[in-house]
Amino acid sequence: MKKHKVAVIMGSDSDLKVMEKAVTVLGDLEIDVEVRVLSAHRTPADTVAFVEGLEDRSIRVVIAGAGGAAHLAGVVAAHTTRPVIGVPIASLMPTGMDALLSTVQMPPGIPVATVGVGGAKNAGLLAAQMLALTDKDLHDRIKKHRAGQADQVRAKDAAVQKKLSSQ
Amino acid sequence: MKKHKVAVIMGSDSDLKVMEKAVTVLGDLEIDVEVRVLSAHRTPADTVAFVEGLEDRSIRVVIAGAGGAAHLAGVVAAHTTRPVIGVPIASLMPTGMDALLSTVQMPPGIPVATVGVGGAKNAGLLAAQMLALTDKDLHDRIKKHRAGQADQVRAKDAAVQKKLSSQ
Amino acid sequence: MKKHKVAVIMGSDSDLKVMEKAVTVLGDLEIDVEVRVLSAHRTPADTVAFVEGLEDRSIRVVIAGAGGAAHLAGVVAAHTTRPVIGVPIASLMPTGMDALLSTVQMPPGIPVATVGVGGAKNAGLLAAQMLALTDKDLHDRIKKHRAGQADQVRAKDAAVQKKLSSQ
Amino acid sequence: MKKHKVAVIMGSDSDLKVMEKAVTVLGDLEIDVEVRVLSAHRTPADTVAFVEGLEDRSIRVVIAGAGGAAHLAGVVAAHTTRPVIGVPIASLMPTGMDALLSTVQMPPGIPVATVGVGGAKNAGLLAAQMLALTDKDLHDRIKKHRAGQADQVRAKDAAVQKKLSSQ
Amino acid sequence: MKKHKVAVIMGSDSDLKVMEKAVTVLGDLEIDVEVRVLSAHRTPADTVAFVEGLEDRSIRVVIAGAGGAAHLAGVVAAHTTRPVIGVPIASLMPTGMDALLSTVQMPPGIPVATVGVGGAKNAGLLAAQMLALTDKDLHDRIKKHRAGQADQVRAKDAAVQKKLSSQ
Amino acid sequence: MKKHKVAVIMGSDSDLKVMEKAVTVLGDLEIDVEVRVLSAHRTPADTVAFVEGLEDRSIRVVIAGAGGAAHLAGVVAAHTTRPVIGVPIASLMPTGMDALLSTVQMPPGIPVATVGVGGAKNAGLLAAQMLALTDKDLHDRIKKHRAGQADQVRAKDAAVQKKLSSQ
Amino acid sequence: MKKHKVAVIMGSDSDLKVMEKAVTVLGDLEIDVEVRVLSAHRTPADTVAFVEGLEDRSIRVVIAGAGGAAHLAGVVAAHTTRPVIGVPIASLMPTGMDALLSTVQMPPGIPVATVGVGGAKNAGLLAAQMLALTDKDLHDRIKKHRAGQADQVRAKDAAVQKKLSSQ
Amino acid sequence: MKKHKVAVIMGSDSDLKVMEKAVTVLGDLEIDVEVRVLSAHRTPADTVAFVEGLEDRSIRVVIAGAGGAAHLAGVVAAHTTRPVIGVPIASLMPTGMDALLSTVQMPPGIPVATVGVGGAKNAGLLAAQMLALTDKDLHDRIKKHRAGQADQVRAKDAAVQKKLSSQ
Repeated sequence: MKKHKVAVIMGSDSDLKVMEKAVTVLGDLEIDVEVRVLSAHRTPADTVAFVEGLEDRSIRVVIAGAGGAAHLAGVVAAHTTRPVIGVPIASLMPTGMDALLSTVQMPPGIPVATVGVGGAKNAGLLAAQMLALTDKDLHDRIKKHRAGQADQVRAKDAAVQKKLSSQ
Repeated sequence: MKKHKVAVIMGSDSDLKVMEKAVTVLGDLEIDVEVRVLSAHRTPADTVAFVEGLEDRSIRVVIAGAGGAAHLAGVVAAHTTRPVIGVPIASLMPTGMDALLSTVQMPPGIPVATVGVGGAKNAGLLAAQMLALTDKDLHDRIKKHRAGQADQVRAKDAAVQKKLSSQ
Repeated sequence: MKKHKVAVIMGSDSDLKVMEKAVTVLGDLEIDVEVRVLSAHRTPADTVAFVEGLEDRSIRVVIAGAGGAAHLAGVVAAHTTRPVIGVPIASLMPTGMDALLSTVQMPPGIPVATVGVGGAKNAGLLAAQMLALTDKDLHDRIKKHRAGQADQVRAKDAAVQKKLSSQ
Repeated sequence: MKKHKVAVIMGSDSDLKVMEKAVTVLGDLEIDVEVRVLSAHRTPADTVAFVEGLEDRSIRVVIAGAGGAAHLAGVVAAHTTRPVIGVPIASLMPTGMDALLSTVQMPPGIPVATVGVGGAKNAGLLAAQMLALTDKDLHDRIKKHRAGQADQVRAKDAAVQKKLSSQ
Repeated sequence: MKKHKVAVIMGSDSDLKVMEKAVTVLGDLEIDVEVRVLSAHRTPADTVAFVEGLEDRSIRVVIAGAGGAAHLAGVVAAHTTRPVIGVPIASLMPTGMDALLSTVQMPPGIPVATVGVGGAKNAGLLAAQMLALTDKDLHDRIKKHRAGQADQVRAKDAAVQKKLSSQ
Repeated sequence: MKKHKVAVIMGSDSDLKVMEKAVTVLGDLEIDVEVRVLSAHRTPADTVAFVEGLEDRSIRVVIAGAGGAAHLAGVVAAHTTRPVIGVPIASLMPTGMDALLSTVQMPPGIPVATVGVGGAKNAGLLAAQMLALTDKDLHDRIKKHRAGQADQVRAKDAAVQKKLSSQ
Repeated sequence: MKKHKVAVIMGSDSDLKVMEKAVTVLGDLEIDVEVRVLSAHRTPADTVAFVEGLEDRSIRVVIAGAGGAAHLAGVVAAHTTRPVIGVPIASLMPTGMDALLSTVQMPPGIPVATVGVGGAKNAGLLAAQMLALTDKDLHDRIKKHRAGQADQVRAKDAAVQKKLSSQ
Repeated sequence: MKKHKVAVIMGSDSDLKVMEKAVTVLGDLEIDVEVRVLSAHRTPADTVAFVEGLEDRSIRVVIAGAGGAAHLAGVVAAHTTRPVIGVPIASLMPTGMDALLSTVQMPPGIPVATVGVGGAKNAGLLAAQMLALTDKDLHDRIKKHRAGQADQVRAKDAAVQKKLSSQ
């Protein structure tokens, strides 16, 4: 059986600085990733062709990041029944409100699992959690990753307390 | 030579109460109209097929109305180089801000001519103005329509003045 | 092997009119559902106890709907590594912007898969898509459901065209 | 027959850095352009005089960019029945929301074809698409321009894949 | 010497239900009022003609109310150096945010004195305060009006205290 | 007879960089100005004392600038029936939306003439326009100032046209 | 020793339908309440006089509710060093965003403890929590009240489960 | 009797640059402070353990600062009946609107006393005001602190007047 993969796609290569956080966390969790620059508007046929070939390439979850009138996740979701995760990216508006609303306010019937503005790391984790539904080893790695996060918070807590007490 | 037409499409039949204002004004200006319910997300292939057949059916301008994460105009614009007019419709949010931003904030390269929230009448007029660029008769009808609007404002002005002076 | 289930929880019984759309679509897709009213703020210990018992009751995905400073999905996500879907509900503000931002803007490390304001049906579909990653029968039912949606749009398209041509 | 032209006007010379994107793309498409600084508020009579002389100078489409309470496009639209394209520019507010709403929310009867905040390139393309309605050569140049855009996305796609595979 | 007057103009007769609050308060303060329906976009020449005739008709202050992309106050201000007061009216958006930003965010050099959304009563009072700068009798009437407001608040205070103490 | 003056007050000395634009334009128009730092919240008694002494010092208009929950203009307006102009200043929020709404949304009965975010120059001009209602010389200076603005726009227009034609 | 009291004040009697939730919960917790209608703008001197007399009447906490440019809580906070709780009320804007920002964005040095839009019940509870800092009996009543809330959620949880299982 | 303390907690050590303003003002007022980094989402059990131990460590008020979907204050408030003060911090969105709404829009029954975006100094003052309800010495120190603020405003007033008169 082929190992399941996650696709990380983005509307422009300028989105890579945000989206590589998804690639990194998926790599840390030992999940194979396919990265593509695909534009819902400038290369719509390439985007649809990519979605129609998902199953054959063992891709089970798609993470799509885009800014402005961010349609990429919605276009992918319209062509597959696999889970699609949308990452709104602040580009045209500094708040990213345009990308957030364009990604999350999908019509009934075609869901996009939306994370926060610039939230590519969470998109990667969410994809991993989905794949872990029937992959106990992956689920254990996710739990370990989360425990590591808690340890980091505790280390920062200790550092802040030390810093303030020494003032 | 076939007469040029305008397509008026919408994402849901519940959008008709807004979009019929475009149909009406186009009819008043003696422009042939084709009306369709096409969903960017629920019937994406139908939508693309519709766009690919535009030229053959003498459609030169498309007016697309949608609410929420309103991608319909953008999807059409991605598949044609004919002018596409977007009508944001207030549905999921009472302000229509989600539909407005999803329609207007298109990436460089793929324009959507956006009108105000619920502004279907203006969409119809804009389409007519485009077709009138080389149709002097239509341009004359548009000028007459606009003069009629001015007359309506003047009639209201007279009515308000009469009403207040009689108080 | 026990069948996997989805939990649909909400912060108040007044949220039920929105959240029952998730229950309905999950029922249509033959997925077992557990429904609970649990408040992140008024019954926090009950909420954590519920999350800690998820695995034992074969719950694999949680859908959490809440309004205002909507913390319910985030609290659940903080206590489990199973996927959590958040449904922002318009209550204190008519736009639901408060619930949307409180649900979607999660910090790096703890994802919540957010759907649109009031988007409980999409939350149900998203949960189903996740469970379908390794359940081919369910995946087939989802595809059939989606095809049904397309047929509904086509029926509305035909109805609108008929209505307008008869005018 | 005189060649049709596009006017690119702006409320202040500080808007030029945005608006020159319209000038550039129109030049690339071999369309003659007339550029003016005209203020709806500080030189209203000049602005109206400019609009009233449009036809004589073979200008068929006007692109108007402005920030803040951006009235320029609306003022032009009030005085001509030729298509007017509005470009909201972020100046007084970093989001440009003031300019967007002032440009797009026109009353019924006087349309402004609005593009995204800072979207001057799309304004230029939209004007070209309008002129191309009866200019097959121009339409061919637009299609070629768009194909070029798709190629750029594909080149970036290849570059990103190469970059990530070499890490 | 002719008595100074205030003009109360509005973009549509549907704005009268808001704007008549300005008319009423000006009447209460014994200030002559001229009321007009004038559209910045549909009757721009009428609007400019009106402004150019202000001085001859002894109008010293203009109150202009409009909704959506509310340009009326700005257009008037562009053609006169007399004070112009803008009243944003909620019409296309229920919050009136579009009208507020279109009215208040004027460029440097052309001020519009903006009141709150729907704040026509305050616009009337503000016009009166301006005229009272050199009209002591009017200033006394304004002070009396304001004292009356304070008395109303005190009466409501007493009523609320009585109501609650009797429960 | 004493010459009428304008007071320019601000909530903090950090607002001076915005508010000095009002001082400058009033100076250009030869209007005497009194500048004060007065906090509605930190020196409320000083602020009220200042307002109660306005008449004695021949101050006829007050311009008040403040950021955040900008109450300064409202507090002044509550204590005088002379015209009060509010200048919202972007400080706590980069859009200045908090200061704008806190300044403009006054309750019926107590008007504040609000200008745009950071619009201190317009506040100065507005104050001058009010004083000019019965000061013909000042009115002439204002008209000259405005004509100068138009000339500046025309010079920029010429410069932009020259720049683009030389490319 | 006199028993400490809480004042509940509001800018208009129309705010009573919101503010009476504070009165009710304070009554349930056996805390003496003084209710007043006081306008920061229409009766500013009365408001200041009220604040200056707080100590003599054993009032230790003030709850102030207002809409629009909601200055009431800020004005009270400017004149006392006792805790002031602000309740933003949706009136001029349906979202209440104007009242929220006007209440919460206070400058450094003068705090207002702000609750959610319309959140008068929470304002009452917060005042009680403050008084309970050195009143063990009151603290016990608050804990009991909170336990009651949890029981209500549990009862609704049971009712919803019963309702759904019987379908 | 043990001296009462205030806890200042934050969701991340990057919040310290904002939150140290609370620590500083509490120190100036001679109030003991406990500072912790605790994440509502990454270390939820630590957070609850911290809250459950509040009473034993003589902590009577908690100040909680967080950004994005800022749940920290709400989580603390859900587990204690002591007053909780929330400080929204601008992080994911430059306006901090996400943190503000996530903190302030709490459901009825669980109050969070919210200060402005980044308003940690006010949070510290508010906590002090609460503790001062039965600590006359502290109340005197707070009054002195506030008088000092007024003096600073007066000094700035003098400096600005001097600066402008010397120009």
